[in-house]
Amino acid sequence: MKVDGTHYRSLWWDHDRDALQIIDQRWLPHDFRIQQVVTLQDFADAIVEMRVRGAPLIGATAAYGMALAMRLDPSDAAMDQAWGFLNATRPTAVNLRWALDRCRVHLRPLEQKQRAPAALALAHEIADEDVEINRSIGAHGLDLIRKIAAGKSAGEPVRLLTHCNAGWLATVDWGTATSPMYQAHEAGIPIHVWVDETRPRNQGALTAWELGSHGISHSYISDNAGGHLMQHGQVDLVITGTDRTTRRGDVCNKIGTYLKALAAKDNGVPFYVALPSPTIDWTVSDGISGIPIEERGEREITHVQGKTEYGGIANVQVTPDGTPGGNPAFDVTPNRLVTGLITERGICSATEEGLAGLFPDMASVEPA
Amino acid sequence: MKVDGTHYRSLWWDHDRDALQIIDQRWLPHDFRIQQVVTLQDFADAIVEMRVRGAPLIGATAAYGMALAMRLDPSDAAMDQAWGFLNATRPTAVNLRWALDRCRVHLRPLEQKQRAPAALALAHEIADEDVEINRSIGAHGLDLIRKIAAGKSAGEPVRLLTHCNAGWLATVDWGTATSPMYQAHEAGIPIHVWVDETRPRNQGALTAWELGSHGISHSYISDNAGGHLMQHGQVDLVITGTDRTTRRGDVCNKIGTYLKALAAKDNGVPFYVALPSPTIDWTVSDGISGIPIEERGEREITHVQGKTEYGGIANVQVTPDGTPGGNPAFDVTPNRLVTGLITERGICSATEEGLAGLFPDMASVEPA
Repeated sequence: MKVDGTHYRSLWWDHDRDALQIIDQRWLPHDFRIQQVVTLQDFADAIVEMRVRGAPLIGATAAYGMALAMRLDPSDAAMDQAWGFLNATRPTAVNLRWALDRCRVHLRPLEQKQRAPAALALAHEIADEDVEINRSIGAHGLDLIRKIAAGKSAGEPVRLLTHCNAGWLATVDWGTATSPMYQAHEAGIPIHVWVDETRPRNQGALTAWELGSHGISHSYISDNAGGHLMQHGQVDLVITGTDRTTRRGDVCNKIGTYLKALAAKDNGVPFYVALPSPTIDWTVSDGISGIPIEERGEREITHVQGKTEYGGIANVQVTPDGTPGGNPAFDVTPNRLVTGLITERGICSATEEGLAGLFPDMASVEPA
Repeated sequence: MKVDGTHYRSLWWDHDRDALQIIDQRWLPHDFRIQQVVTLQDFADAIVEMRVRGAPLIGATAAYGMALAMRLDPSDAAMDQAWGFLNATRPTAVNLRWALDRCRVHLRPLEQKQRAPAALALAHEIADEDVEINRSIGAHGLDLIRKIAAGKSAGEPVRLLTHCNAGWLATVDWGTATSPMYQAHEAGIPIHVWVDETRPRNQGALTAWELGSHGISHSYISDNAGGHLMQHGQVDLVITGTDRTTRRGDVCNKIGTYLKALAAKDNGVPFYVALPSPTIDWTVSDGISGIPIEERGEREITHVQGKTEYGGIANVQVTPDGTPGGNPAFDVTPNRLVTGLITERGICSATEEGLAGLFPDMASVEPA
């Protein structure tokens, strides 16, 4: 989407430099820095340190990482090593493994000299596919917004709430949860977005930056506020993204999503999850018992990064010295709390039947 | 409770200086600053700027404010003026009005020359009563913890979760939600407390400071984490405080409390609210429609205060420049989500019958 009037993707291939460019998202929303990713270690760092984040973008980044690995050494051993090295960078995002598996399956049968160009072409293809998937998700989600808008008086905005950043920064373009918002805005439907700040990493600030850059009305709120807003009829629709969705529609997403789903249920607010099909994990059914939850470092919760009054980026410690922190990074929203899943093939119920109906070609995977 | 081995209350009268001393809580948990409160404007600032915060402490502070007003001018007009001036400092805390009304009812029949000493004596009495109320709340809450501990193997901690700071810093001593925790600790029952950071003002850092200073095991977590922890059996009991409880047991407390109550209900975790009877508002029944919710400034949500690496206190801006913030400060948890209310007279159901059974002397107030 647009930054200061210029259209960007969250990663792109620079043909002149023959190298991948990413936006180093650690400096957003304060500073828009572009980084060239050169070594395999650069790729791992980009994912581990969350210069790139968001399941689809991690998947695309890993595919370019595999392309680099094939340039350096197109052997089977190097391929397997790169697979293992890149797959170890983040434990929760199913797209990471999905992208790496897809690369390996595609490249393995090829002769070694074909592998480097084929891997790069495949990475481009994965990135372009992601853009198209997200565009389609937005088109289906737009129908939901249009229906709500039809019940309002002219000019009255549809009020959406979202958690974390499932925006274009988390994908290659459009975003997942934000794609319906961008498309509603472009269709001239007035919307207002309540943006959860999404502690502890405050990815809501990225969402606020995206929406602000695109001219979409929004308010940044604490994660605590959504229940109150729903109780008072201030939210028409919740749309979040997901890092992994099980075959029965349990949704693993940023920590706190479950609490918003509970509040939506309690107040009769529709709760939708936008997901590209690569984030469906057909091998898992019960998300609560079946998905390991990444526990991240204490410092993420005890310290906060922001811009100082002098314009620099600094970290401040919120807690007393030595306070122990607990930091589970994701939670699982059981399918009973999810009104529907917005996929690139349409909207379905958060059930095995719903997902299998849209994706019969994928649903044959046996649960583990 | 104790700070570095010395016992403190959150406010106290310094007889040598003949003036009230408070802890300026804006600098906690990083810096322990004591402030003398001298003028009526000082009192208002202390409440408005949240140097003192927490419903019971605000009530006691206001009573000392009235005592100062009577020193300056013991007329009826001055009394009414001080009532109005102090009552306007915070819209939600029912204790504020309760304390001011109590002062006025007590002082009005007295001759003017008696009013200054009587007002000071009454302020002392209100402060001491608060300590005794909180001690009693803790004794009743301790029974709950003891029962849970009885079902665990030796040494296995009872895991509590709390939101905001309903600790001794929010009262005169003991705290409300924390009083059972301190008493369990002193009774030798092992506990571990999950401390919600409580955005946007991070009052959880105060709770962490209190518990750490007293040697109680705890972890500081994002407000988003509690649902996940409950889903995975990591929470035995939730205890929060309240700023105002309606006659039917709806609980108005720090924003986000409602979300924790929903998660507790969804996971069968008992959810208790600790409250001194002055926080019961017998004039309101339905808390969601009947309690106005304070909307605080945007800067609380867009900026975070903490300690820099150089040891100073600084504010950093988390959001992009100009991001609009929404900041409702409280929410209402409907009584159907509350397992029980822990009062100074015992534990009751969160119903009109439950509260009236414990407080028949107060329940005769007609709802508005």
